[in-house]
Amino acid sequence: MRFIVGVMGPAKAKKKDLDHARMLGELIARRGWVVLTGGRDVGVMDAACEGAKRVGGSLTIGVLPTAKDKVSRHVDVPIITEMGSGRNNINVLTSHVVVACGLTGSGTVSEVALAVKAGRPVILVDASAADVAFFRKLGKRLVAAASSPEEAIALIMRQVEGHRGHRRHAASNEYDVLSI
Amino acid sequence: MRFIVGVMGPAKAKKKDLDHARMLGELIARRGWVVLTGGRDVGVMDAACEGAKRVGGSLTIGVLPTAKDKVSRHVDVPIITEMGSGRNNINVLTSHVVVACGLTGSGTVSEVALAVKAGRPVILVDASAADVAFFRKLGKRLVAAASSPEEAIALIMRQVEGHRGHRRHAASNEYDVLSI
Amino acid sequence: MRFIVGVMGPAKAKKKDLDHARMLGELIARRGWVVLTGGRDVGVMDAACEGAKRVGGSLTIGVLPTAKDKVSRHVDVPIITEMGSGRNNINVLTSHVVVACGLTGSGTVSEVALAVKAGRPVILVDASAADVAFFRKLGKRLVAAASSPEEAIALIMRQVEGHRGHRRHAASNEYDVLSI
Amino acid sequence: MRFIVGVMGPAKAKKKDLDHARMLGELIARRGWVVLTGGRDVGVMDAACEGAKRVGGSLTIGVLPTAKDKVSRHVDVPIITEMGSGRNNINVLTSHVVVACGLTGSGTVSEVALAVKAGRPVILVDASAADVAFFRKLGKRLVAAASSPEEAIALIMRQVEGHRGHRRHAASNEYDVLSI
Repeated sequence: MRFIVGVMGPAKAKKKDLDHARMLGELIARRGWVVLTGGRDVGVMDAACEGAKRVGGSLTIGVLPTAKDKVSRHVDVPIITEMGSGRNNINVLTSHVVVACGLTGSGTVSEVALAVKAGRPVILVDASAADVAFFRKLGKRLVAAASSPEEAIALIMRQVEGHRGHRRHAASNEYDVLSI
Repeated sequence: MRFIVGVMGPAKAKKKDLDHARMLGELIARRGWVVLTGGRDVGVMDAACEGAKRVGGSLTIGVLPTAKDKVSRHVDVPIITEMGSGRNNINVLTSHVVVACGLTGSGTVSEVALAVKAGRPVILVDASAADVAFFRKLGKRLVAAASSPEEAIALIMRQVEGHRGHRRHAASNEYDVLSI
Repeated sequence: MRFIVGVMGPAKAKKKDLDHARMLGELIARRGWVVLTGGRDVGVMDAACEGAKRVGGSLTIGVLPTAKDKVSRHVDVPIITEMGSGRNNINVLTSHVVVACGLTGSGTVSEVALAVKAGRPVILVDASAADVAFFRKLGKRLVAAASSPEEAIALIMRQVEGHRGHRRHAASNEYDVLSI
Repeated sequence: MRFIVGVMGPAKAKKKDLDHARMLGELIARRGWVVLTGGRDVGVMDAACEGAKRVGGSLTIGVLPTAKDKVSRHVDVPIITEMGSGRNNINVLTSHVVVACGLTGSGTVSEVALAVKAGRPVILVDASAADVAFFRKLGKRLVAAASSPEEAIALIMRQVEGHRGHRRHAASNEYDVLSI
């Protein structure tokens, strides 16, 4: 099983958030992890996949709201849910860690909340103090803040290592972090 | 078609939020509107349905996460989705207006965000200034705050009347507000 | 909790199947049971709700594929899933019994199969011998055949009575069959 | 975008169907296509992924009903839907072609029906004449029968080539068939 990092963010994103998403995609792919996004050809979804596909052998999964949405050309495997925003829950359930680039969209906010509900760790990249406070109150230790994509990756690495330590004693449904 | 008000809130709710939910359920039912909740036998879901069933001829719909969840005994029609938190999107899509009693749970926060995403009006009852500011930024004019169940009902009445004014010129998929 | 009978059948239905659906809707409503359909304004869905609404105090639930579908004007409570054919599973999970009028559509066939998967009793009305044989092989004792709406109702009555006998010893999540 | 072949079949499968699924998985992977299954560690799902993972560089996607299901160890990317049988629609929507190995399970029958509903080509491997007749009546030219995994692959090849011919004049959302 591969380790999957979900990169979430608005379709109509600021340049800053797109740059972060592109860099995140690249850094995630370099680690040998899978990049999962909402799969459309716009915003953070598209940018994260674009970044990942700069890396040879990378894998990008896009979980699409409907069969009619235009798929990002940087998505290797589009999962067609035909569920609209109901697919947001699948995005976070499928991700081992969720990284949010930009909290200006209601879809992204729902994904962070659903990730917390499902017990998935969430990293907010370059979020405002008010937004971090809002989600920390909601998700407690599941929610971390990072000022940059690099810091987000460092946080994930720490989680993976903690997970690996734990793994010596566990056995079921474990993931392989292939390239590290 | 009946007018449907979704009442959302945490499973582990404060007494204050339960009291609000019970009163909301009763006031909604007195108007002849349908009460929709998450359908389980706990928290705001249960209290809103309980309040509604104090009113003769009321109708309560519960949209349940799984077939194994215990259904509130105040739910007339349990909709079994077998979708876990994915059912949150169905809750808000099906409601003409969403009222949130208590924002302490990640499920409720996801529902408010999904309601905004779907263009449904949301009323936050007795929410903190920080929470109101967070959702106002996200949902703009779709999000209103009310200090009490009575004020929430007054806000819904105004929406229904605006809708009716509009309705003289429209024709498709309109709802009947039976008792007013 | 109310007893719910799902009436499934094609959007493009034969006159015979529409007549059966209309009669089924009426007979179900006369028993005080809830009629559940796919909710659109066409075919068996529409006809079953139309039949039910001939009866005073009846309740019709329509579980719709998307928010854009035209809702049958005979539906009291439209449940908006935004899930396309994924909503077929909700139709059968929510129904205590599923009745199929016409097996010419792939949506209806998927619903009968999903009902069997979920352990729901299915009654095929006026189905061909080959179709009955196909589903009997699949669903064994869950699948029954009826030559008419009246016979289908008689079969459901027998199930409800069996259920009631069992009910003296059980307590959870039981339904009320209001008018009988 | 990668070309995705869904292999569907019962959890409790006959030895013959398991052998076919294993061979199908291997042949699909050798073509550079992605194998998609229901993802659990049993039956046809497990066997198809096992066959695929005999091939270096293969990719297996498993679309799982719930987070609690045991994932096949031959699945590279588990998609967690938390939707029970509702995920069957995602399986077929995501597959460019669906191959069914064994029609003894109601889940598989629902998937073939949902595939037809969604306009996906379906190939029934080693199915009985009665089952082929049932689905041909339902799906017309979308449904083909193959006596062996090899014949199923030949049928898919012909579809891919037809698609490629068509592709010269089209542009959107096209897949790459990487290794052929």
